[in-house]
Amino acid sequence: DTQHNGKQHIGPPLITILQDLGKIQNSKTRAFTLFEWLISPVTPADFFRDIWEKKPALIKRHNTSYYEGLFSTAEFDRILREDNVKFGVNLDVTSYSDGSRETHNPPGRALPLVVWDYFKNGCSLRLLNPQTFSHTVWNVLSVLQELFGSMVGANTYLTPADTQGFAPHYDDIEAFVVQLEGKKHWRVYAPRRNGEILPQFSSVNFKDGDIGEPILETVLEAGDLLYFPRGFIHQGDCLPDAHSLHITISSYQRNSWADLLEKILPAALQVAVEEDMEFRKGLPLDYLEFMGLQNSEMEDSRRSTFIEKAQTLIKKLADYAPVDSAVDQKGKQFLHDCLPPVLTPAEKAHTVYGAPVTWENGRVGDDTIQLEMDTKIRLLRGGIARLCSEEGCLLYYSSDNSRIYHKEEPKFMEIDAEHVEAIEYLIHLYPKYVSVGSLPCDREDDKVTLASILFEKGLLVTKEQLALLR
Amino acid sequence: DTQHNGKQHIGPPLITILQDLGKIQNSKTRAFTLFEWLISPVTPADFFRDIWEKKPALIKRHNTSYYEGLFSTAEFDRILREDNVKFGVNLDVTSYSDGSRETHNPPGRALPLVVWDYFKNGCSLRLLNPQTFSHTVWNVLSVLQELFGSMVGANTYLTPADTQGFAPHYDDIEAFVVQLEGKKHWRVYAPRRNGEILPQFSSVNFKDGDIGEPILETVLEAGDLLYFPRGFIHQGDCLPDAHSLHITISSYQRNSWADLLEKILPAALQVAVEEDMEFRKGLPLDYLEFMGLQNSEMEDSRRSTFIEKAQTLIKKLADYAPVDSAVDQKGKQFLHDCLPPVLTPAEKAHTVYGAPVTWENGRVGDDTIQLEMDTKIRLLRGGIARLCSEEGCLLYYSSDNSRIYHKEEPKFMEIDAEHVEAIEYLIHLYPKYVSVGSLPCDREDDKVTLASILFEKGLLVTKEQLALLR
Amino acid sequence: DTQHNGKQHIGPPLITILQDLGKIQNSKTRAFTLFEWLISPVTPADFFRDIWEKKPALIKRHNTSYYEGLFSTAEFDRILREDNVKFGVNLDVTSYSDGSRETHNPPGRALPLVVWDYFKNGCSLRLLNPQTFSHTVWNVLSVLQELFGSMVGANTYLTPADTQGFAPHYDDIEAFVVQLEGKKHWRVYAPRRNGEILPQFSSVNFKDGDIGEPILETVLEAGDLLYFPRGFIHQGDCLPDAHSLHITISSYQRNSWADLLEKILPAALQVAVEEDMEFRKGLPLDYLEFMGLQNSEMEDSRRSTFIEKAQTLIKKLADYAPVDSAVDQKGKQFLHDCLPPVLTPAEKAHTVYGAPVTWENGRVGDDTIQLEMDTKIRLLRGGIARLCSEEGCLLYYSSDNSRIYHKEEPKFMEIDAEHVEAIEYLIHLYPKYVSVGSLPCDREDDKVTLASILFEKGLLVTKEQLALLR
Amino acid sequence: DTQHNGKQHIGPPLITILQDLGKIQNSKTRAFTLFEWLISPVTPADFFRDIWEKKPALIKRHNTSYYEGLFSTAEFDRILREDNVKFGVNLDVTSYSDGSRETHNPPGRALPLVVWDYFKNGCSLRLLNPQTFSHTVWNVLSVLQELFGSMVGANTYLTPADTQGFAPHYDDIEAFVVQLEGKKHWRVYAPRRNGEILPQFSSVNFKDGDIGEPILETVLEAGDLLYFPRGFIHQGDCLPDAHSLHITISSYQRNSWADLLEKILPAALQVAVEEDMEFRKGLPLDYLEFMGLQNSEMEDSRRSTFIEKAQTLIKKLADYAPVDSAVDQKGKQFLHDCLPPVLTPAEKAHTVYGAPVTWENGRVGDDTIQLEMDTKIRLLRGGIARLCSEEGCLLYYSSDNSRIYHKEEPKFMEIDAEHVEAIEYLIHLYPKYVSVGSLPCDREDDKVTLASILFEKGLLVTKEQLALLR
Repeated sequence: DTQHNGKQHIGPPLITILQDLGKIQNSKTRAFTLFEWLISPVTPADFFRDIWEKKPALIKRHNTSYYEGLFSTAEFDRILREDNVKFGVNLDVTSYSDGSRETHNPPGRALPLVVWDYFKNGCSLRLLNPQTFSHTVWNVLSVLQELFGSMVGANTYLTPADTQGFAPHYDDIEAFVVQLEGKKHWRVYAPRRNGEILPQFSSVNFKDGDIGEPILETVLEAGDLLYFPRGFIHQGDCLPDAHSLHITISSYQRNSWADLLEKILPAALQVAVEEDMEFRKGLPLDYLEFMGLQNSEMEDSRRSTFIEKAQTLIKKLADYAPVDSAVDQKGKQFLHDCLPPVLTPAEKAHTVYGAPVTWENGRVGDDTIQLEMDTKIRLLRGGIARLCSEEGCLLYYSSDNSRIYHKEEPKFMEIDAEHVEAIEYLIHLYPKYVSVGSLPCDREDDKVTLASILFEKGLLVTKEQLALLR
Repeated sequence: DTQHNGKQHIGPPLITILQDLGKIQNSKTRAFTLFEWLISPVTPADFFRDIWEKKPALIKRHNTSYYEGLFSTAEFDRILREDNVKFGVNLDVTSYSDGSRETHNPPGRALPLVVWDYFKNGCSLRLLNPQTFSHTVWNVLSVLQELFGSMVGANTYLTPADTQGFAPHYDDIEAFVVQLEGKKHWRVYAPRRNGEILPQFSSVNFKDGDIGEPILETVLEAGDLLYFPRGFIHQGDCLPDAHSLHITISSYQRNSWADLLEKILPAALQVAVEEDMEFRKGLPLDYLEFMGLQNSEMEDSRRSTFIEKAQTLIKKLADYAPVDSAVDQKGKQFLHDCLPPVLTPAEKAHTVYGAPVTWENGRVGDDTIQLEMDTKIRLLRGGIARLCSEEGCLLYYSSDNSRIYHKEEPKFMEIDAEHVEAIEYLIHLYPKYVSVGSLPCDREDDKVTLASILFEKGLLVTKEQLALLR
Repeated sequence: DTQHNGKQHIGPPLITILQDLGKIQNSKTRAFTLFEWLISPVTPADFFRDIWEKKPALIKRHNTSYYEGLFSTAEFDRILREDNVKFGVNLDVTSYSDGSRETHNPPGRALPLVVWDYFKNGCSLRLLNPQTFSHTVWNVLSVLQELFGSMVGANTYLTPADTQGFAPHYDDIEAFVVQLEGKKHWRVYAPRRNGEILPQFSSVNFKDGDIGEPILETVLEAGDLLYFPRGFIHQGDCLPDAHSLHITISSYQRNSWADLLEKILPAALQVAVEEDMEFRKGLPLDYLEFMGLQNSEMEDSRRSTFIEKAQTLIKKLADYAPVDSAVDQKGKQFLHDCLPPVLTPAEKAHTVYGAPVTWENGRVGDDTIQLEMDTKIRLLRGGIARLCSEEGCLLYYSSDNSRIYHKEEPKFMEIDAEHVEAIEYLIHLYPKYVSVGSLPCDREDDKVTLASILFEKGLLVTKEQLALLR
Repeated sequence: DTQHNGKQHIGPPLITILQDLGKIQNSKTRAFTLFEWLISPVTPADFFRDIWEKKPALIKRHNTSYYEGLFSTAEFDRILREDNVKFGVNLDVTSYSDGSRETHNPPGRALPLVVWDYFKNGCSLRLLNPQTFSHTVWNVLSVLQELFGSMVGANTYLTPADTQGFAPHYDDIEAFVVQLEGKKHWRVYAPRRNGEILPQFSSVNFKDGDIGEPILETVLEAGDLLYFPRGFIHQGDCLPDAHSLHITISSYQRNSWADLLEKILPAALQVAVEEDMEFRKGLPLDYLEFMGLQNSEMEDSRRSTFIEKAQTLIKKLADYAPVDSAVDQKGKQFLHDCLPPVLTPAEKAHTVYGAPVTWENGRVGDDTIQLEMDTKIRLLRGGIARLCSEEGCLLYYSSDNSRIYHKEEPKFMEIDAEHVEAIEYLIHLYPKYVSVGSLPCDREDDKVTLASILFEKGLLVTKEQLALLR
């Protein structure tokens, strides 16, 4: 494991980071910059080369205020008070002692009086998807998702002093444990066997005897970061003298080559069947007599012939694999998983959300916003929309998603064949502004129409402020 | 196309064929022998080498009685009278004239008065799955299914003189058109394009202009046979002077290599994921930016690297493909599709169905049938059961199937690990009789128990008649 | 209880009874005559006046052959051998000893070898709905259903000597226990309390301590009959020296006034709402404050006013009750529950089932059956069809039902308003024959059309044999 | 119709009304007071005696600011901007011209730019359930629901000058049309026939020719109120010189005696069946022969006997009707329909929502709120909870409902039999405060436990502020 135990590491406060991000034009660059701050002083280049998906990393900063502003118990308390937090849906009350892991959720709304009572009695509080309630967490995750190209999620964990809330286990995601308040004693263990390296699914709760000796043991303090890949077993407990609050930021759930192959294989077979008669030929009349479990130990040359034939066909599938189309299925799912973008005030003023069409003095202002041929536009975010081909061409997008995971159905609009090029033009030129008139449409009046549709869905920002467009 | 237009071809009547079949011990040999008769004078060897899945074949016999006893309008009339035949479920009333194909099914039961009225008005009558009602058709199909290792089905078609019942089309099955009564004018056309050779699905109804010129045109007379592979377009119409009755025997629906690959691929991916970390590694962070429809014309070396990586993984799947296990999934489906066996009287007397346990004089006969260690047993049919591995070992079997397609759920019993060898022993030694005592079970008393369970499910025949076992 | 312990009671054998029934024109009279035989020497008049729904009755005949031909262990054995009897669906294997009631059904088909083995080991065999397999039971039940106007069902029970198959309990049907073979010791107990007299649902299994002393105790011998109303607890066990076979014929399940009121009440409310504004007026603003469980002990005059108002409205419903329409809902259900009719050979020759339209010498006989204006027709059975009004007028009928309970959906045809009178004419004139021409239709050609439709559905018999109609 | 065309009618602004309401202890009194303001200068007594459910009423106030603060186009614009308003779910875009009523909802979120564009093009905008978005509307409706004892709902309608948004029709609710901005020309028509007075369901869209002449025609101006009962046809259109904004407040949907009888009748039948054998007796054997549609014109004394018997039983049901239990079913539904209460700051400080348990300086404040025996408590609202009996005693409550209709499942808790009296005590003594110690529980420690459970669900307010309880 990599430890960064040097002296105090100082960085700008998160609020400054987020304000500065707003000045960056390219959402991918924003994501990179924010991630840089998250793992600083390790560089992203080093991180993705040496650590990511390979081994745990510990970054100790001796600076309790490094992550200040991301989330706090004070905000947690406010959320309990003001929002409709529900036990079992948004909040889990858990405990782990003497090897026994329990969940204590009562039914109904989680009001502070009850929640804090559990806490005082030694229970841990896991707030699920704090981005639903915390604007800053939403902002951070929605920025980071453009770096990972995979859903970025989070949970927060508040643990009373001298207790542990969860049994040792491993997860199916890359985990960034961000210590926010207090401190926590962590132990991380290597995957138990080859098959549990980078697993597709989380583990059960382990017993201490199942997991061997930790390869990393530390006390995480506010401002520190601990990363470990999926498959690494871990457990954290509070010292007698301090509670702990941390947020775990996660990504890369079901985002492996196997997950892509799940999409590719049926599609590749379908293409192969259409194009290659070898796939459509009947099986041998007698194959059931020498193949199958009951014949698997039979010495019969027909078996090897049959198996080789099957293997040859599998290998031929590589030539028929519609990789781009399978990637689009992944991309489409990602857009459904995405958090909607958080707009800066400046961005808002340049999108449909800030369109200065208002009701004044009993009537709608006359001077409606109208995109013109010379209006400069671009996509709001690099990854806000994606063209996918399935019985016609569809543009999937994330601007109408909810902060609540999958609360909305996947959003898409059909794109006429003659407009595909213009959409691709917008996607490929991002983050450059282009004039509506430069969109490669055959018909002139399609240009404003198409731009208006995208603008009305919140996918475009204009270069000039909208009020000035009139 | 192959035509056998020689002189009159004479064979034994079907009833003799079927009786002789009963004397053959091996059900695979029975199937081969019956198929030999079906396509005689062409030999099965020639047929499967030169014709099967390749081209149509016409066998003219100049012998109207060759197929006598298989099915007849007289039996059709009896079925309408005695059985609960329903329009739309068991019987279709159709017509095709002036390029227009219509179905005329009224609701409810198909009584002769109504059915024959349609016929007199020029409608064709298609009896679906006549094996449900005709013992001989059931017998013939249940024997043939052991040759094909794939469901063998049938429909019968009764067409009035001077009419046509169906539009030109192609099917998704290998078709054996057996002319039973009268005669019919047939035209067969080659597949229209490469992709329609050996298709997985049947076609829509074609217009005459869609299908080109016939490659085979003939008048089929009672006793003649016409075979054509799936994908060959065909249409048949009656001459002004004669009605026509034929039965189409079919097989190999969804029984191609592609259908097997559908089972193999997800299983192969699962094995690969478990065994090979390359499959579990995350996708590149930025793959959505250069892959997918919207990037498919981008010049970017990352694209070819990505595609090659995907192709390499696909090819690696060949090494992980659990072919036997996928074959068992096909085998299991086939056992569900199978017709139950038709037993000869002699066979019945040697199975549970003929067990001479009876109620006499107010009490059950005392001398119950009891398999003993020296009782000689074997499977009732070569393909009556199949071991499949899925969370334990299951023995699927067809003896409790219904004559009505999929009326029964798939039947299976769980086999303890220590009995698997004994089951395989019975399967592999078929058609040889073995003594119960020779079953390779660890515990002596398991032998009789296991044999009794199989016997009670109708899967075993004893060598000696059951009454003599006592 | 009524006991008929006189000397031997002799009657004609069932086969004679059934043949004689075929000569009776009116199906209601047939039903009455058969029931007369069933309970002889008690008369139906006495039975329905003194016994039915009131108390048990025992008829001892000292004539073991009285019910011969209805059902037997020999027929049971044949059914197991020839039909697809399934454990749990058609046959239950049960035992009751030391107060413990068990069911022993294995999965799958019930073959004689296995079934008789259970029997020899002391298990009782309950064959459910023997009418599915036994032509005579079907015939008897289908005749009796016209007497009861309610489904008539049956189960048979075969019990080994010296055993008992069922715990004491009461049923929700009127039970006629017909002893067929051997003998059985019966004990019948009065309903335990007022609320269990004529109950709507069967009881759980009782313990001996729950049920008091029997009010009737007897040994039923072949040829004897035991009747008891729903709600009377009963248990039967075999003596050490004889097995027992009996069939229980049952009726009047959910056929009480309450069951009719279940249909009447929602319909009455709907009519009242449409016709009477009192029902549509709003509830008092404050009714929730003085009504309901939490206020039920409140002294408040508003409560009595409110309750009286509700009671007044309930009583007013009597004036709006569409009794005929509710009866039709019951009638429609009964027609769905009905067994299809068993036709005598003579009847068959006069219905569509015997229509001499046949396939001969390669063609359909030319002389189709054609109903003419002077053809004499009547319904096949008095209760074979029923007009019901629901969004148009529907004729429900039972001729296409299955011997298997509810295997078929309810059968009906829509009747045009101008044909309702003709249908009613046929129903009301039953069992008189009327000429097609006498049907009260406005248009002459409707008469033959309507008659033909009914004839083709099997609802009509012609007076003259069909062959002679030509 | 009643018109109040006097001079300017002046009242306090809504904000004052609402503040003053907060000082009223009894939620029923609050509701009455707010309704008084709504219909002033008509008095509630006059209104419910002469107008409610009887005829339309028009109250003209010549005071455009009377309803100020309830809702406005400015708030509508803010909602569009800040909230996730969706076309078809929360907002309908409609038009009615030349007798043709159309809906123009596009898919997705309703952003101001698009919405106002529709408006400028002459479409009406119906915001459904504005209480979801407007705190004041939520407040007003949640107060009023305690007066009506039936769900109180609302829609707002914004109509451009010189247009009409809806076809003439009648609704199934009592409607209070509150004119907020601009003016609208209204025409109200009497129910067309007796059966359409106080109907259970809304009408289709009518044509002008269907509805006769208006009985009331007026121009509603801001500050005016128009009431009409369900069943009264109405249409409103804008004059050329002014747009219109109104909110329609509605209640009494499916809240008639018939709706209560729907609950009573099945329950009454069930009681009658259990208690009265007359209901359980079998129907006459032959009733199907003289009853039913096909026999309805038969002269037969059995018919009148049968009908009278049915009528007698219906009338007897009145004696068995469990009216309180049926009311509880209505009450339970009402509690599910209810809006959650809006708390004043003072109320909040006395409930669980304002419990001063907070996170400070890294720990939970030690001095937890704890109800004591001498703590004074009462229900938060008179109608916030209701005891219902159904397999045990359940307390249904509305405090955890959502502002979105039926977003939450019905909320209830099981009440042990020994606590029912204490719950009733709290309900009946409302709005009086009682001490926890005075609750009629058998066991002393149950008192605090029970009070704490109710308090934690938000059902109780304490007399003293919570901070002072410590």
